[in-house]
Amino acid sequence: MQQPIAVLDSGVGGLTVVREVMRQLPREKIIYFGDTARTPYGPRPAEEVTRFTREIVDYLIQFRPKMIVIACNTATAVALEDIRSRVTIPVVGVIHPGARAANGRTQSGVVGVIGTEGTIRSAAYEHALKGLSPNLEVISLACPRFVPLVEQGNFRSAETYEVVQSSLESLKCRQLDTLILGCTHYPFLADTISEVMGNNVTLINSADETAREISTILHDRNRLARNEALPVHQFFCSGDPRMFKTIAQQWLGEQIELTPVVWQVPQIG
Amino acid sequence: MQQPIAVLDSGVGGLTVVREVMRQLPREKIIYFGDTARTPYGPRPAEEVTRFTREIVDYLIQFRPKMIVIACNTATAVALEDIRSRVTIPVVGVIHPGARAANGRTQSGVVGVIGTEGTIRSAAYEHALKGLSPNLEVISLACPRFVPLVEQGNFRSAETYEVVQSSLESLKCRQLDTLILGCTHYPFLADTISEVMGNNVTLINSADETAREISTILHDRNRLARNEALPVHQFFCSGDPRMFKTIAQQWLGEQIELTPVVWQVPQIG
Repeated sequence: MQQPIAVLDSGVGGLTVVREVMRQLPREKIIYFGDTARTPYGPRPAEEVTRFTREIVDYLIQFRPKMIVIACNTATAVALEDIRSRVTIPVVGVIHPGARAANGRTQSGVVGVIGTEGTIRSAAYEHALKGLSPNLEVISLACPRFVPLVEQGNFRSAETYEVVQSSLESLKCRQLDTLILGCTHYPFLADTISEVMGNNVTLINSADETAREISTILHDRNRLARNEALPVHQFFCSGDPRMFKTIAQQWLGEQIELTPVVWQVPQIG
Repeated sequence: MQQPIAVLDSGVGGLTVVREVMRQLPREKIIYFGDTARTPYGPRPAEEVTRFTREIVDYLIQFRPKMIVIACNTATAVALEDIRSRVTIPVVGVIHPGARAANGRTQSGVVGVIGTEGTIRSAAYEHALKGLSPNLEVISLACPRFVPLVEQGNFRSAETYEVVQSSLESLKCRQLDTLILGCTHYPFLADTISEVMGNNVTLINSADETAREISTILHDRNRLARNEALPVHQFFCSGDPRMFKTIAQQWLGEQIELTPVVWQVPQIG
């Protein structure tokens, strides 16, 4: 039996990571858990996000995964180290891959980070970036108006351009040459963000970078899949399965096998 | 005492990897071995390259490194798995990082690889790329005239342009959108190669990508350096120390501490 890679997220945003893993590592089997009944994690206290993340890991561990991927910036920021200390398999978040890519690409040494208020407040990107290169200058900015635009499917309208432009105004006069999209929803606005920031700013998409690091770590540990047959992925969600299935199939471009999960003690509030 | 990262190469080419590690991971201490007495490895039989690589690893292991980096395409192609099986610390080559980056970037699914005759003959890049994504199309081309140009410091002359253009002619009619510079010397010709291949072809520089993977693996294994003081690197070479020192200081932009090494049984031939 092929051991899967377990990917978890507060909802559907982590599917951007799944899509990249499917593209970069087509032999790997994925099990995905979207905690759509309790999304979003952003505004919740850190202790609650950690507890939710532990619950999902406990659920996914029954499938004997070879790796856990926390494909959610908020959960990575507050729970990555906790989960790493609780399991013996590698645990990958979305923050370090984005930070590492930005650190590698920047020439000016000035890196921007945009994310939800929870992610920016945690200073997790700043911590990761300065942990690698203490002399980097990091400019962080919360963009609370971006996620609603994406959830409305409003990627390229005049309104979107106006929101992106006014949100990023304070970054435009800075010397940054690299901007981390520190939220799994933001890649959908990448064209507009790029238009606003100009050609001299490289955007870092955490989904691409996380898939790349999953590949590096599995190779280092000699755990890359070698099967010839294509794997069948499995998806789980805690909220409305129809909505999840519609979005997942649209994003991934293929039919998915979905199992709804009901938490024993529902925690919607 | 800070455990270093040990980097080895047949000569000076691996200094491109050292420069990137110094930039991306300024806290890490590096020990470098350039086997300049026996360079180049490219035309040698695989058994000989494996033996030389083992000898260098045996020499470097006295410094208790936390990781070994084989910063030479030829040695990676023939000796990586052998060295991995002989030590308990992680061993990183330059081929998989380049292959992984190309696999992540290509949209057309057609990837080009240029390298020395030895590297291309080994088919190591093709093997690494297809191991990740079996459906990739890989076009490999040996460019034996490139290394002499670099060793003469002839990066941007009319002659260089002519050599690069005629060497890459057969790649230009293909659908590749990503080209791996599969030799540590080639990044010095990157501007000319890019001019010849056009803006639609992304060049993959193995040095950048290898530094990035070193960071990923040390992070996964919780072995990234945390010291505040800047490390002092150490360099060793088996050939003419003056020549090595001149080139290394020019490439790295700083003074280096160099120790000449005399092999007990000199093997120059």
